[in-house]
Amino acid sequence: MKLSISKHELNEAIQQVAKAASSRPTIPILGGIKIEVTHQGVTLTASDTDISIQSFIPVERDNLVIAHVDKPGNVVLPAKFFVEIVKKLPSDNVEIEVGAHFQTLIRSGSTDIQMVGLDPEEFPVLPSIEQNELFQMPGDLLKAMIRQTVLAASVNEQTPILTGVLWSLQDKQLKFVATDRHRLASRVAQAETAMEYRFNNVVIAAKTLVELSKLVPDQHGLVDIVVADNQVLFKIGNVLFYTRILDGTYPDTSKIIPSMFKTELVLDTKNLTDAIDRAYLMSREEKTNIVRLTTLDNGVIEISSSSTEVGRVTEQLDAKQFDGEPLRIAFNSKYMLDVLKVIDSEQIFIGFTGAMSPIVIRPTDHSYNTYVILPYRTTN
Amino acid sequence: MKLSISKHELNEAIQQVAKAASSRPTIPILGGIKIEVTHQGVTLTASDTDISIQSFIPVERDNLVIAHVDKPGNVVLPAKFFVEIVKKLPSDNVEIEVGAHFQTLIRSGSTDIQMVGLDPEEFPVLPSIEQNELFQMPGDLLKAMIRQTVLAASVNEQTPILTGVLWSLQDKQLKFVATDRHRLASRVAQAETAMEYRFNNVVIAAKTLVELSKLVPDQHGLVDIVVADNQVLFKIGNVLFYTRILDGTYPDTSKIIPSMFKTELVLDTKNLTDAIDRAYLMSREEKTNIVRLTTLDNGVIEISSSSTEVGRVTEQLDAKQFDGEPLRIAFNSKYMLDVLKVIDSEQIFIGFTGAMSPIVIRPTDHSYNTYVILPYRTTN
Repeated sequence: MKLSISKHELNEAIQQVAKAASSRPTIPILGGIKIEVTHQGVTLTASDTDISIQSFIPVERDNLVIAHVDKPGNVVLPAKFFVEIVKKLPSDNVEIEVGAHFQTLIRSGSTDIQMVGLDPEEFPVLPSIEQNELFQMPGDLLKAMIRQTVLAASVNEQTPILTGVLWSLQDKQLKFVATDRHRLASRVAQAETAMEYRFNNVVIAAKTLVELSKLVPDQHGLVDIVVADNQVLFKIGNVLFYTRILDGTYPDTSKIIPSMFKTELVLDTKNLTDAIDRAYLMSREEKTNIVRLTTLDNGVIEISSSSTEVGRVTEQLDAKQFDGEPLRIAFNSKYMLDVLKVIDSEQIFIGFTGAMSPIVIRPTDHSYNTYVILPYRTTN
Repeated sequence: MKLSISKHELNEAIQQVAKAASSRPTIPILGGIKIEVTHQGVTLTASDTDISIQSFIPVERDNLVIAHVDKPGNVVLPAKFFVEIVKKLPSDNVEIEVGAHFQTLIRSGSTDIQMVGLDPEEFPVLPSIEQNELFQMPGDLLKAMIRQTVLAASVNEQTPILTGVLWSLQDKQLKFVATDRHRLASRVAQAETAMEYRFNNVVIAAKTLVELSKLVPDQHGLVDIVVADNQVLFKIGNVLFYTRILDGTYPDTSKIIPSMFKTELVLDTKNLTDAIDRAYLMSREEKTNIVRLTTLDNGVIEISSSSTEVGRVTEQLDAKQFDGEPLRIAFNSKYMLDVLKVIDSEQIFIGFTGAMSPIVIRPTDHSYNTYVILPYRTTN
């Protein structure tokens, strides 16, 4: 293998795939980036057991030469050093040449680097996915759906299925649900696909979705998504992102969301966020994060929290709307803040069915998001 | 005590003093901020065993009312919560009122906070320092002196005196020296003071100087410095910063800096920094950080490092000047990078007296800085 390539383009592709290289590989090859060079271009691949990312650099783009290939070939280079050094090479042109035993020479300006390469035959083979059926989502919408649901996924590895986000597709409607048994987040959106295409119980690790999100540009361009037996493939421009589907059956959450309420509030999102943020600071001192919401007269809402050692915070807010019974309820302020930070609506609806029943939070502008928080049982 | 005060001014003063409040106080009072209110203004003080910081907010500045004092008085409030909450108060006006048992009420907009206050009589008394003799340094110069020396202070608490920077003043010349026995940094500058004012063996903890540095504006305005028996006081505008002087005698370092060299190099600072930075990436793989410098023919310098598992980096640089004997020497690349990052000169001088002798690094533009790095003894 022998080629010269633009440092900028090589670096960009390395940054895209590097996240999938294992930082503590069980065998050295899993801590590597595979480089495949053909006369069409350069393909970089990294893969740990959970995700694989591949990025393709064409030899030419918009009539600009990006890479000049003298001799096709393959090699695997240790990711950690390779990722760091390419960023810092002195010239915009990088020459890479692979010799006997995958010994690799990298030249740029007056810098000469010899790297111990590994045999590409030992590199994991990417899952082969039949691409008959797929659906498409605008990149910015997919990112919003991820951001608005991952917060409720469990971080406890003891119930692995709850560390994921449940995806389902029916009647062109894509739905994400996440829950850690204390709270739930769900989001629906229209997908671009055939009416009859549907799936269920596709669960993808929340942390994988966060990584995926970073690779998706903040634009309206479409991302292709292919769901296979135990893998999902995302195509984002020249980048392919593979993730495995989590094993197990996701619990049925459809019955825990109340639809009738005894108390209904509409509040200004920013005012509520600021008030709970201040109450959170006090609740944090007690390490419980407990904040109380109490309805007062004349549509006034009181938010309060206290700590024996530090003191007490009391906030008053005017409700935009207040229907139903008076209420006094306690909940985890951190959970409420997580929801308020990702809701994209100037006002929010909160529905209660009693001090011991799930609290439902929704934007008032649209009905794509639903959040549920279980209240705390407290003695006073 | 009862007053109303601008949130912005209160917050700024809190941020200045908060660093001195102990984050893990042995007794609660040391984790507090003392607030003293008189008809002249509000004084905030925080103090752990090493440093004390005091900031004064006048009731009026430039004919603008900052605080309105109804009733003078003192209280100590727990720093951690107080620091966070003031930032987040809803209105620019904050009312503070202290009642029985130091119970403190803070009001801003529709937010009410009750805080458990502590008895100000229990708060540590600041050292009383006679201010007969002092010297002055421009703020930006003081910051530069700190930045250019703290890097060589020891981080090993087993030899406490070496975790400090040695200050001495003689003939209006202020000198800073730091060393961890593997490297040394020194910096001199002119101080504004009486010719006969002098001191020696004043050692201040490097981490304290870094904190001080953050409080000094990046401007030419003068900082007053008073050296007392076991304390140093810095006056930066309305802020007073007290630090204790480290106990013990600083080792004599005057004899370890060679003044005659067998090999002398002048190199471009940026080119050398970049080359060593790349070699450092490889040396880091071996956890030794060893980099070699070898003189080649025609004034060319080779920088190289290697790792059995990853490979080898070789860099070539043209020396701007090269006098004396050929040389092959190994040193800690991290130490060299620390020096190169703070040297403010386009070209640098490096002097060698042999492969086992201290390496001396100096800017070429001026002679205020001297750096010394001990080489590694290596077998090949």
